[in-house]
Amino acid sequence: MSQLNWHRYGKAGIRLVKVDRSGPYDRIIDLTIDVQLEGAFESVYRDGDNASCLPTDTMKNTVYALARQHRIERAERFALQLVDHFAGKPGVSTVEIGILERPWVPLSVGGRPHPHAFAHAGAEEWTCRATHAPEATRIVSGVTNLVLLKTADSAFDGFPRDEFTTLAETRDRVLATSVTATWTYRPDTRRFPDRDGIRTALVETFAEHKSESVQHTLHAMAEAALAASGDIVDITLRLPNRHHVLVDLTPFGLDNPNEIFVATEQPFGLIEATVSR
Amino acid sequence: MSQLNWHRYGKAGIRLVKVDRSGPYDRIIDLTIDVQLEGAFESVYRDGDNASCLPTDTMKNTVYALARQHRIERAERFALQLVDHFAGKPGVSTVEIGILERPWVPLSVGGRPHPHAFAHAGAEEWTCRATHAPEATRIVSGVTNLVLLKTADSAFDGFPRDEFTTLAETRDRVLATSVTATWTYRPDTRRFPDRDGIRTALVETFAEHKSESVQHTLHAMAEAALAASGDIVDITLRLPNRHHVLVDLTPFGLDNPNEIFVATEQPFGLIEATVSR
Amino acid sequence: MSQLNWHRYGKAGIRLVKVDRSGPYDRIIDLTIDVQLEGAFESVYRDGDNASCLPTDTMKNTVYALARQHRIERAERFALQLVDHFAGKPGVSTVEIGILERPWVPLSVGGRPHPHAFAHAGAEEWTCRATHAPEATRIVSGVTNLVLLKTADSAFDGFPRDEFTTLAETRDRVLATSVTATWTYRPDTRRFPDRDGIRTALVETFAEHKSESVQHTLHAMAEAALAASGDIVDITLRLPNRHHVLVDLTPFGLDNPNEIFVATEQPFGLIEATVSR
Amino acid sequence: MSQLNWHRYGKAGIRLVKVDRSGPYDRIIDLTIDVQLEGAFESVYRDGDNASCLPTDTMKNTVYALARQHRIERAERFALQLVDHFAGKPGVSTVEIGILERPWVPLSVGGRPHPHAFAHAGAEEWTCRATHAPEATRIVSGVTNLVLLKTADSAFDGFPRDEFTTLAETRDRVLATSVTATWTYRPDTRRFPDRDGIRTALVETFAEHKSESVQHTLHAMAEAALAASGDIVDITLRLPNRHHVLVDLTPFGLDNPNEIFVATEQPFGLIEATVSR
Repeated sequence: MSQLNWHRYGKAGIRLVKVDRSGPYDRIIDLTIDVQLEGAFESVYRDGDNASCLPTDTMKNTVYALARQHRIERAERFALQLVDHFAGKPGVSTVEIGILERPWVPLSVGGRPHPHAFAHAGAEEWTCRATHAPEATRIVSGVTNLVLLKTADSAFDGFPRDEFTTLAETRDRVLATSVTATWTYRPDTRRFPDRDGIRTALVETFAEHKSESVQHTLHAMAEAALAASGDIVDITLRLPNRHHVLVDLTPFGLDNPNEIFVATEQPFGLIEATVSR
Repeated sequence: MSQLNWHRYGKAGIRLVKVDRSGPYDRIIDLTIDVQLEGAFESVYRDGDNASCLPTDTMKNTVYALARQHRIERAERFALQLVDHFAGKPGVSTVEIGILERPWVPLSVGGRPHPHAFAHAGAEEWTCRATHAPEATRIVSGVTNLVLLKTADSAFDGFPRDEFTTLAETRDRVLATSVTATWTYRPDTRRFPDRDGIRTALVETFAEHKSESVQHTLHAMAEAALAASGDIVDITLRLPNRHHVLVDLTPFGLDNPNEIFVATEQPFGLIEATVSR
Repeated sequence: MSQLNWHRYGKAGIRLVKVDRSGPYDRIIDLTIDVQLEGAFESVYRDGDNASCLPTDTMKNTVYALARQHRIERAERFALQLVDHFAGKPGVSTVEIGILERPWVPLSVGGRPHPHAFAHAGAEEWTCRATHAPEATRIVSGVTNLVLLKTADSAFDGFPRDEFTTLAETRDRVLATSVTATWTYRPDTRRFPDRDGIRTALVETFAEHKSESVQHTLHAMAEAALAASGDIVDITLRLPNRHHVLVDLTPFGLDNPNEIFVATEQPFGLIEATVSR
Repeated sequence: MSQLNWHRYGKAGIRLVKVDRSGPYDRIIDLTIDVQLEGAFESVYRDGDNASCLPTDTMKNTVYALARQHRIERAERFALQLVDHFAGKPGVSTVEIGILERPWVPLSVGGRPHPHAFAHAGAEEWTCRATHAPEATRIVSGVTNLVLLKTADSAFDGFPRDEFTTLAETRDRVLATSVTATWTYRPDTRRFPDRDGIRTALVETFAEHKSESVQHTLHAMAEAALAASGDIVDITLRLPNRHHVLVDLTPFGLDNPNEIFVATEQPFGLIEATVSR
């Protein structure tokens, strides 16, 4: 006999663009939403009995209807509204709402922001994840694809060497990464004011830190974020090391004083940690 | 004061191609490898002290050197050899080796397999993950990007309807998915003979099952996999529902007897479960 | 005064899946279609006058309606049917239909092909492009994403060296590429029987050729394709050189007898040519 | 007998990052470079004779060496320097250098730009292509992945209807696109001062234009670019129509006053034109 240990279902990749026309300047809310439910749905799997299986198509419809019914100021608030809706459905024990938010910025025309025209701001995106489970509701927010690079104040030396170590020590290298950060708000937070402050703390610390390693900078960034916001209880950072390899120009009779690099995609170092108060 | 709750580092995306020339027919082993370590590395993060920080560049070198020293018959065995190597490094408590394996098949020339020429078999890839932690070593293998579609024996009806439900019931739809499966071997398994048998069980069950839902088919596939191999203790399946939407041709005076579909990317249903004995 | 030199518009990325249920075994036709029109549409651009502008949404609808009305045996024939339709629209001078075809293969169940269940065969895709212009109609077919690799019979030496050359000569290297081929059919061809024969010629020549360079193998493949089909007048091949770099293991006291490679993505050699009779 | 009609070879995807440390603020030059040569290389293809075949590996080395030797102010100038170098190689008749430039912006720390820390500005990239052929040298520059959206002043109506037309007319829709623009400089231009001015003309026109169609806006943008720079002779725009589809909320008893949209990827309208003086 087999046992159904865990199961989850839902709709992923729901693309929602809402235009808020209530002010003198339009506002674009551009979200990609995932809805995932857990609960008493064993008979759907075991018996092919769909009596308890709310269609994932309905989840999609629900997102659009609730987006019309609610003003969306912050993705986190909308995620909680979706959580509340789905938590009330029969059989549901856990609801998880994930949101990826793409920022748009007003175009500047004649030096002033245009009220109706926008540019996609770049690869950087905001994330949030609201989870409702029997024990608690949890909100995790973050930023992803924030690509940073520094040309000074980055070293890597003093490391152990074994029989397979060939890396040269350096006191001066290019450091580049694509930041993915996620932070957990205190339980029952209902306002989420600190997003920009946390981002600023991450970015300024990356810039100013005298880095001995990616790990070292990650830790400093995490501490700065915790200091910047009293509303968060922990922060997780995921920093790929996007290696910039110094090109050996000596075969051509040229030196390379930390100037000419190959940017590589693979392989990459990957450094992750969670820091809490 | 902050607390460093969790941290992990390593090298990801190490591309290794090994040519085994020992037989009359060459064999291509094409792997993308991730190495991740956890352990007593707090001072690297807190103090910028690299004395305990084996460089990720050394991890990459190690993969290539061990690939030369060992015959690679199965990715799982090579993952365990890498685990054993890194578990012996100072400070290390947990090692995780992830491998993605791309299959190559001999080209057919004049109806016979060519000894030295190959085609990349497709998007389907094999995965494995070996984890060494103080308590135990664990091997999880799998397959990903296995894209399947059936044109009969798939229904979805009898589901509950709420105020946002518009989906029509159907006894006959196109069902398409991209299978990601991962199964856990019994502790201390050192041979991994059942990969093809598990894949066959998954694929044949998908084809033959009278599906009432993706969930229903997922469960049948999982049970078939467990029946096919006594060496695995559980299996997790992740089945996105790649919706094929019937086109409404009535505005053009045409019927559409389950024949003309739009294949859509977003949004998609996502069904996941773990089944054990 | 400005001049509108050239303009073209249409719908791209029309996803069509047709299930042919007419035989004992179902057949999947999976196409991604682009429609592009040129013609007397200047006033649309200059004056914002849409009186001549057939909506691209109508092009999409047309594809689905014609897919219902016509049996689709070969993508080339369907492309010509679409060409004929749009060439009759007011103001149109040139029609271009591009089709990307994804192959599906029946699943094998108990050693026999299943009538209703399929696997996506892989990354390899068929292409065709039908162009109707006042002077002539032209059909170009091809294959793309056909990834090949050989472990023997590939050399590169005897090349000129300048002050920036560091590459070592070799009589034995791994050669890997992703073939994109396009061939032009004789004018007014209406049957397209030779697709598999041309593919076989390309693949078998890649396997058997004693290669002095990618260029050398490209030329042999092109000649073999022309020999395999009397219906084509030329063939263009685009062969990226997916470099497999031999790893230097000497720092670890190991040799590397053409066995351990890094597969790299960037940069890549790119070799292209057109060969005709 | 076959005929070798056309052939070209080179190195693509050469990733170059140069740090200019000559001023108080560092400057990042981040380029991806393609080198392509045509010339008297038939014997390489036909005979496997590499005596005339400068290795593509040498092209890569050359890019790095010249990047060290020359100050890179503008990608166009560097492209011309590469063109001049390769045009002098034996047998070469045509050189084409393509460059994709990723912009980096200084991080703001305490409200001021940081001298050594940068953020990747987004998906938008600058392009240029320098072509040296026996008859002339030609420089084409551009911008790509510039994603724009407007929430007002966009209509599409008055279009012809045929038997497959279902699209509703609208005087108010969301218009979104990803601009790819390329403009040709006058022959023998050696300074390229107008990049930002052309971009501003494109963006401001997109924002301000009363659009009757993508075609209509494209034409206005092209005219504005030609007016903004006397150094360019033509401009080509490629504007995909990233459809934002109004969601039908009437099944849920809700109206949708141009507020809730699905952003779709496929299919998409595609509008292209070249406008010259």
